Amino acid sequence: MISPGKGLSRVKISRLADGRLVDRKDVVTVEEPLEIRVEFTRNGVRETSAVSVTMRTPGNDFELAAGFLYGEGLLRAREDVAEISYCQSDEPQMYNIVVVKLRPGTLFDPGALSRNFYMSSSCGVCGKASLEAVEVRGCEQIPDEGLNVNQAILSGLPDKLRTQQDLFDRTGGIHAAGRFDEVGELVSVREDVGRHNAVDKVVGKAFLAGELPLGRTVLAVSGRTSFEIMQKALAAGIPLVVAVGAPSSLAVDLARRFNMSLLGFTRSDGFNVYAGAERIAT
Amino acid sequence: MISPGKGLSRVKISRLADGRLVDRKDVVTVEEPLEIRVEFTRNGVRETSAVSVTMRTPGNDFELAAGFLYGEGLLRAREDVAEISYCQSDEPQMYNIVVVKLRPGTLFDPGALSRNFYMSSSCGVCGKASLEAVEVRGCEQIPDEGLNVNQAILSGLPDKLRTQQDLFDRTGGIHAAGRFDEVGELVSVREDVGRHNAVDKVVGKAFLAGELPLGRTVLAVSGRTSFEIMQKALAAGIPLVVAVGAPSSLAVDLARRFNMSLLGFTRSDGFNVYAGAERIAT
Repeated sequence: MISPGKGLSRVKISRLADGRLVDRKDVVTVEEPLEIRVEFTRNGVRETSAVSVTMRTPGNDFELAAGFLYGEGLLRAREDVAEISYCQSDEPQMYNIVVVKLRPGTLFDPGALSRNFYMSSSCGVCGKASLEAVEVRGCEQIPDEGLNVNQAILSGLPDKLRTQQDLFDRTGGIHAAGRFDEVGELVSVREDVGRHNAVDKVVGKAFLAGELPLGRTVLAVSGRTSFEIMQKALAAGIPLVVAVGAPSSLAVDLARRFNMSLLGFTRSDGFNVYAGAERIAT
Repeated sequence: MISPGKGLSRVKISRLADGRLVDRKDVVTVEEPLEIRVEFTRNGVRETSAVSVTMRTPGNDFELAAGFLYGEGLLRAREDVAEISYCQSDEPQMYNIVVVKLRPGTLFDPGALSRNFYMSSSCGVCGKASLEAVEVRGCEQIPDEGLNVNQAILSGLPDKLRTQQDLFDRTGGIHAAGRFDEVGELVSVREDVGRHNAVDKVVGKAFLAGELPLGRTVLAVSGRTSFEIMQKALAAGIPLVVAVGAPSSLAVDLARRFNMSLLGFTRSDGFNVYAGAERIAT
């Protein structure tokens, strides 16, 4: 998925085995900062605002930028984006600054991200307030779309995802997110050193293709599920999230509040259903 | 380590096994937001600044706040802290807002965190600039302290850490960080849904005990190592980091630049040494 030149870095290491250190060549997953900037029009004047720096694995950076901004509620519609490019004034060009240019007339609030960050609410700082903040940002309950996926398809998704994890095979240290349709066909998969970034890339790809909200889609993730992962899936309209790892309490709460289905500890021989069992056909 | 009432949440789930869904009781790791505020004196006037909201597992919150602020370079010395408490005006009291009160006369720059976040540097946004930013914030190379730890001790640390992971045993979904001395004796261990939080708690405990910088210490982490994890260990003066998982490229670069030792894929029968093999006795 990611060209090895970008996502992998060769390193010389020592390997301890049988009590001795032996020199060896190895590869590790690349982690580099990405700065996301948004160019927008305010009072008739073009402005640029740096909204985020995230550590990520290079590759599919435009998708990552679009997916991140969409998940945070800073981008709404594909047609609002005029162009996404690497910053040209970045000398030497490191491909670590992405500029998302919005069409004139598109509303953009550069302060919204820090407000998301602080999530102030009448009830104070707590999980309930965090869920309310998601609602205030415009996320609605997933509608009852009649999705009903066979349990054998769901329990097979981690293995399907695993076969697509090119970088994991080489480094053993990278997360993946995969978008599947309701019969378990892979639509897209992305890898990243940050599990939230892998989801942003999958969602960003769909955003750029004008496919959001998704509906009738299963998102499979290689790790655990947190508030953040579930909130990104919800924003994209994904009804069903299948994780290899455990969920947090707030991931479960978010899934239940917004009518999502959430599976964890998914293996070929079974899984736990934390929310939305009605979407699973047994 | 964390009282079950705080760190664990009971949920009703369905478990798929043998093709059928069966109702079951389960426990998941609690994830709740923590807001960290700093009260300080500027121009003779007491001010309070909210510096961060992080999703964490409740428990050892004062350590988390202290460790986070120390790792970001916002706290320097134990004697600068007059008191740490939960916010009293938080009604109803959710224990999700911690106030770190600095002694009058302590310099505090509430804007430093966002500058850390953007890590601007002459060379632009890149891994190299991220490492330079760590240096600019005052982190120096770990001195050659003559630490030399037996390989058998190091390869045994993940199992020792594992036996201390009370919450992991119950939920399968939580990270741990453990501080060990040079003969492999456990000094402290902390668990959290965020792996960076687990490290902050271990470092914060040492900070509050006036033990920083640590030296002659091994930090064991249950997951992978990233730039962020290594930067926190460096700030605490920890020369040797042992991880169960893989490192990222920038974790390796940071370890090498700052004279740290970094192990990955650590199992009872061996490990990879990505930096600083001279601290390992074979």
